This record gives sequence, C-alpha cells and structure tokens, in this order.
Amino acid sequence: MASRKAVLTPRAENFPRWYQEIIAKAELADNGPVRGTMVIRPYGYAIWERIQADMDARIKAHGAQNAYFPLFIPESYMRREAEHVEGFSPELAVVTHAGGKDLDEPLIVRPTSETVIGEYMAKWVQSFRDLPLLLNQWANVVRWELRPRLFLRTTEFLWQEGHTAHASYEEARDYARRIADEVYADLMVRLLAIPVVVGRKTGRERFAGAINTITTEAMMGDGKALQMGTSHELGQNFSRAFGIGFTGPAGGRELAWTTSWGTSTRMVGGLVMAHGDDQGLRMPPELAPVQVVVLAVKPETREAAHRIGGELAARQVRVTVDDLTDVAFGRRAVDWELKGIPLRVELGPRDIEAQTAVLVRRLAGNARDVVPLADLAGRVPDLLVQAQREMLVTATEARDARITPVHFLAEVPEAVEEGWATLDWDLIGPAGEVELAAAGITVRCLQRADGSMPESDTEPGLVAFLARAY
Amino acid sequence: MASRKAVLTPRAENFPRWYQEIIAKAELADNGPVRGTMVIRPYGYAIWERIQADMDARIKAHGAQNAYFPLFIPESYMRREAEHVEGFSPELAVVTHAGGKDLDEPLIVRPTSETVIGEYMAKWVQSFRDLPLLLNQWANVVRWELRPRLFLRTTEFLWQEGHTAHASYEEARDYARRIADEVYADLMVRLLAIPVVVGRKTGRERFAGAINTITTEAMMGDGKALQMGTSHELGQNFSRAFGIGFTGPAGGRELAWTTSWGTSTRMVGGLVMAHGDDQGLRMPPELAPVQVVVLAVKPETREAAHRIGGELAARQVRVTVDDLTDVAFGRRAVDWELKGIPLRVELGPRDIEAQTAVLVRRLAGNARDVVPLADLAGRVPDLLVQAQREMLVTATEARDARITPVHFLAEVPEAVEEGWATLDWDLIGPAGEVELAAAGITVRCLQRADGSMPESDTEPGLVAFLARAY
Repeated sequence: MASRKAVLTPRAENFPRWYQEIIAKAELADNGPVRGTMVIRPYGYAIWERIQADMDARIKAHGAQNAYFPLFIPESYMRREAEHVEGFSPELAVVTHAGGKDLDEPLIVRPTSETVIGEYMAKWVQSFRDLPLLLNQWANVVRWELRPRLFLRTTEFLWQEGHTAHASYEEARDYARRIADEVYADLMVRLLAIPVVVGRKTGRERFAGAINTITTEAMMGDGKALQMGTSHELGQNFSRAFGIGFTGPAGGRELAWTTSWGTSTRMVGGLVMAHGDDQGLRMPPELAPVQVVVLAVKPETREAAHRIGGELAARQVRVTVDDLTDVAFGRRAVDWELKGIPLRVELGPRDIEAQTAVLVRRLAGNARDVVPLADLAGRVPDLLVQAQREMLVTATEARDARITPVHFLAEVPEAVEEGWATLDWDLIGPAGEVELAAAGITVRCLQRADGSMPESDTEPGLVAFLARAY
Repeated sequence: MASRKAVLTPRAENFPRWYQEIIAKAELADNGPVRGTMVIRPYGYAIWERIQADMDARIKAHGAQNAYFPLFIPESYMRREAEHVEGFSPELAVVTHAGGKDLDEPLIVRPTSETVIGEYMAKWVQSFRDLPLLLNQWANVVRWELRPRLFLRTTEFLWQEGHTAHASYEEARDYARRIADEVYADLMVRLLAIPVVVGRKTGRERFAGAINTITTEAMMGDGKALQMGTSHELGQNFSRAFGIGFTGPAGGRELAWTTSWGTSTRMVGGLVMAHGDDQGLRMPPELAPVQVVVLAVKPETREAAHRIGGELAARQVRVTVDDLTDVAFGRRAVDWELKGIPLRVELGPRDIEAQTAVLVRRLAGNARDVVPLADLAGRVPDLLVQAQREMLVTATEARDARITPVHFLAEVPEAVEEGWATLDWDLIGPAGEVELAAAGITVRCLQRADGSMPESDTEPGLVAFLARAY
C-alpha cells in the first residue's frame, strides 16, 4: 500500500490547504477561468445531484412547485426594496451590452430572485384564494466574491431558492420555520449526517430585506461554523415594494406576507469539512454516489469482482467495480479512500482461493475484516445503515464536545479558538456583537434556553452561539 | 359546459396567436421582464422536469456523466475558434462591470460551452486511457433574440449540452449519431409522441465550428418544421483551438475528436405545436405531469372523488382531484382541457347514485363513456397506454400525409405552404438552397434514399427535406 503520509497535508497542520487539496485530489471541482468561478467535476456533481433529489422531494412534500425565473433582472427592480439593493450592490455583475448594442437599462445577473419573483407574484395573486403561493426554483446565481473558495464562496453557485406568499404573518412565519426544520435541518442530519443548530440570526446578520432569518449552522473539522442554509421571513417588505396584494374573504385589500429560503452547492463544501479526515473524504452511505467499490487486485480476480458487483447491485447497493489492474493496487486504494467510498471490497488471488474477501470500512478508520464470499453481499446493506448512524453519532459527539458555555464576553475569543461558545445574548447585545466582529467572531444564531426558536432577538434569556465562520 | 368557441383563437385562423394564447391560458409560461426572456410557470416546468428526467437517464445510460461549467466565459476563449465566434457574435450578452468595478476583460454569458469545456478537456485528457471523456451539463444559456417567441426562441433558455472527446473520427461520429438516434429521436418518439426525421444538416445550416450537424426535425400543427435537438461532430476544430491532445498507445501525440449535442426547453414549444388543438394542449400520457383529473361536480361528490383519486394513485397513476365546487363546473372542465390532461373523470350526484362515473378521453376528441365506479381505476392504466400509442400513430400519419415529394425546385414553394416537401438534393445544391432561403424555405436535413445517414452532403442521391421553419 502506498504511504498514507503523502496523500494530503494533515488537517491539523493547515486546514485550508488540506481543504484545497482534497477538493482537487478527490476530483470534486476545479477553479473556473474567471476568478471565483468553479467547475464542478463529475464526482462533485454526483454528490450535488443526490442532495438535490432529496431536497427537491422534501420541498415538493411541503407543497411548493418548481418554476423558473429569468437570470437577468432589470436594475430598476433591484432598487425597489432599499435594504435589499444596499445589501447586494457590492456583489453584483452587470450586463451592459447585448446583441451587438449597448443596453438602455443595465441588467443585473441575479444574485437572488426576490425582486423578479415579487413582480410575478403581484401579477398572479389577486384574491386570498390564490394564497398560499409556494414556489421554488433550481438555478445558478452570481455574487462577486473577493475571497473565493471552492464550494464555500464562489462567484457563481448553484442553489434552490424558495419563494412563498401567505395571507398572514403567522402562516408565513410557520412556513419559513418548517422549511428550516423539516426540509433543511432534517436533510442535513439524515442525509449528510451533519448535526446542525437551528436558530435565529441577529439583526446584524439578517438577510438584506428580511424581518427574520432562520439559519442552520454546522461545525467544520477546524471548529469553525458554516451556515448551511437559511430561511427568511420577509414580512411585507417585498409585498409593499412589488404590490403583492390580495382581496381578503371580507373584501378588503391586504398585503401578502412573503418568505424566501435557500441552500446551495456550499453544502458540498460543508460535507467535506465536517467529515473529511487526513486520508480524504468520508461519504455518508445514504448520500454516497458510490457506496461500495469492489477492487480486483490482480487480473485473475476480475471476474469474481464483477460477480460480486452484480450481487451488490441486485441488492440496490450503488457499487463500482475497479478492475484496472494495470494501475498499482495501492494507488487505486488510496484514490478510493480520497473519494470517501464507505466500503471497499478487496479481492486478491488468495482471497478467491479461500473463498473470502477483505472488507475495509472507510468510516470506521479503515477497519479490515475477512468475510466469506458467500456472506458478503448479504452483509453490506446493514453495514451501510450502521455506518450512516455511527457517522451522525460521532459527528454530534465531536461537535458537542467542542461547544464551550462561557459566562463573560471576555472569555469568548479563547473559547472559539477550536470550537464554538455559548453565552447569554443579554450579555452581548448589538454592542458586544460589534466588538466580537472586530476579532473575527460572529453570533451564528440565537436560541431560547430550551433550544426553541425565539420570536424576536429582544426576548430576554436567549442563548447566543458564537464562532469564527466561513 | 361553457362555450368552447371562446377559449382559444382557432389554429386555422391564426396559428401564432393560438400558440400565444395556449401558452398563457394553460399557464405554461409568461414573458419575462427583459425582452425575450421567459418565466416558466409550474405547469410548464413540471413538463420540462419530466422530459429532463427521461433525458438524463438516457444520457447516463450512454455513459456520459453530469458536470457543471461556469456561466461566464472570458471573451478571449470565444475568439479561439474562428467560425464559432463568428457564428455567435451577434447573439452575445456581455458583462462589463462586476463587484463595483469595470472588468479588465469582458465576460461572455455562455451561449453554449464548447470553449470553456474545451479548455478543461485539454487539462483532463493526457493519454488515450482518459478517452472517451463523456460529459453533459444541465444549464441556462443566453442568446440575444431579435424575434423572441416563448419556448421556441428565448434570450435565455434551459438545456442540456453534452460534450465528448474521443480517440478517433469514427468513434466521435458514431457517438454523435447514437445520441441523435437513441437519446434524442427515441425520447421524442416514445415520450413526446412526436415523430421526427433524423438527418444531416447542409453546410449552410451547420453549427458554427462543426464538421457535421445531425438534426431531429418535427412537423408542427401548421406544417412548419421545428428543429427539436441537434448533435454535432466537431472534428478536431476545438481540439486544435484548445489543445485537447493525447498520447496514443504507441506513444505519439494526437488531437482528440470532439462532439457536442443539445436539447432545450424549446421541446416544450414543440410539444404544444405538434399536439395542441383548438381546445388546448394534448399531453401524451407518458409525459403528462397529471394523467387523470377527477372532478367533483358538486360538494356532495367530493368524498367519492377523493376515494377514486386514492385508488388511481395506488395504481401509480399521476392523478389530481379537483374538488373546487365553488367554481363553475364548466369553467373547471375547460381549464383541464386547456392543460391537456389525458383523462377526466366527472362525478355528479346522479353518477354516484348509479355507481358510475363519466370518463372523458381528451386525446380521443373528448369521447365520453359511462363507466361503473368499480371498474374505473382498473381500466385507466390500459387507457393511458393505448392513448399514448394512438397519439404517435395519429401524429405520424398526419405528418406523412403532409410531406409532398416534388421533382423540381420550382414546385417547392407551393408544396411547403401547408407541410414539407422532399426533393433530390442534387437538384438543389448550395445555389438552390440560397434561392429557397430567399423565399423563407430551408433545407431541414438530408437523408439517403433509404432513410439512412449520409457520410457527407456531397454524396450523390441524397433526399432533402424542405420546409418553412421556426
């Protein structure tokens, strides 16, 4: 087997470099030709497709329908909601020339679609019978990035953005929360095996134009926080700006209450940083595009490898057979480890003689078992289920061990050096938040002491989660 | 029942207006805020999603993997292949300003991705072992349109674009043809129930930068042709421009042979125009997002409607229950007809009394049958299969009846007034093609006399398909 040392820079030595190397060596993505853009390679895209499929089914189960709105937004639309345009202005890309001519009105390449969707909601919503209007779109968006990093912060990224309109404040609030809890957090926990803290953003961290932002925050391998997805209550801000009004049951004219919510290819970066180790990716079996790789060690074991591949495929296992025996076995094994395939079956000539195979469990620190060939396929489905469960338990324990409750603002910087801190929000407040921000520390979110969702950030007794963040 | 006359302008009276009205009234799409752009509404998008899913499975079955390349292409990339940039220049949208600054190099919003993908293929392909490289992406592209029409020709559209690199001319040629035949044409015939003619484009109609373009051409309700999808052999043009080279088995350095191929949201427009009638859309059951609608005529039949809906869903039928008995029954029936739902089950109080339902077959000219409730769910799956088959037979017969073989160039204009013409290509040639083009008539494609694919457009004895086109 090739030396493990050489594969990746150890995380403890240089986490950012480790991240860059793993993205390249596991063939997840490349830098695009334009600064900050990204080429998503087939393995990275296969992961994204599986996240997409699960997310899409959940969104539909919550009643939203997919639609598609244009990439180009007239500049005048962006200006209609004052906070929104102010928040996004520095990041906009602008088309000024098209079809061989200078344009009369510059076009914004969408950084998000509240404005253009608001315009159409106003057209489609007439009466309370047209509500709720629940829409979602899968799209690319552009936000010019000064400090880009693949998957985490790219000038162009892929995402889903949900946009809904409701007849009342309560209905909009509840829907935004259900998306955060039942769609986003639940997917992250069950599919990605990443535990997340769901809480309320402070006024400072809120989405530009929202009255409330609910976030799902995950801890990365270096103890920093990553915002994995957000769900916003937009109040009547966009309804007012775009005229999304409706006739109520009693005949009066009212403004709708809207929400928006998004998750993106950033989740792939979160997956890498939450689970990866010094050998490479570690893929949760539920998500893994390839759950098992069967390696023929020598040409004479190819046939057996394909037979086992067939048996596993028949049990609905996502399996790949690697019979490239021209390439050194050690190199192939290291490459599959880099890609984080949960189970590896190794078949050498002696294994065949003994009617056994070596089964390597990537997610259990490469534990190796010798398994009779006759039992192999039957055992795999359970092992996959078990590995998924264990990954979540391990990730949750590791995260919780790195969350330090502190009692004074001054304790925060040390506490967040290798993890998160919690502190009473009353002891921080907007002033403390500014002070922490100067030290590169942000309030990731607020929860009530019992973990439930606050109605506002001025409720007494709230707990703040503090961390350095991506 | 509401008067049928009022729903749509009859096709025979004004086909373009009929098209515009059906797109709006069946809620498929709206015009976007920027000229030529499109908002795809949930029903239109659901149709696109079902086409996508089938296409994606076929593409994967042909060995290609999905990936994603950036939206923005440096202007310098576009210039590297001379014919390509010349072909696309008039249609480009250009970003000149981003992140609050003027850009040093303008960015092209991709009209297609040969150039950027070529750049990465050059990086990823080193040896013959890296070939074939088979990639596909689902993306939006932008081509500035002076005469936009929803779905058919929009400034921004959604599509898939496949890009492959091969070690030999023959392999690239065969792959491009298999995509045209087994992926595109077969999907159009089986899923969309639209017969297509597969043939070779003339030099004049070829993709900018290709050595051959294979097209799939369908006849619309007004007798015009619509290009539904194309597959291109790019020869070594892009390999030369981007340096996609490889070391062969013998050690020598060679240029790869590449292909590209695409289908888009334009297919939704083709579906409307190929099958629609004066009452609205007609959806092939295989494709239909909703195959059966169960209408409760009165509030007291709602419960029975939902029971039947449940029985149909249990048989894997895609069913919707319309229990909005506040809205006039006639209006609801007309709306479902507009949307082209293959089967409609009507349940009134008398039907329930008699333990029957009225079953209306949209695709059989709204034929109405009284069916015992106990038999209903059991009959539906076969009726759907049968309707799909009949749609294809009807569409094929109707198309073939409108293809007129002619013997002189002078006969063409009259022959293509309400359909297509075929004529020996030897009697047309590049000069005749220019003459026809002046009259708004194009050579849609060339076939051999036996219907097979020509190796070049200078082979003797080829048959040209001639038509006015979208």
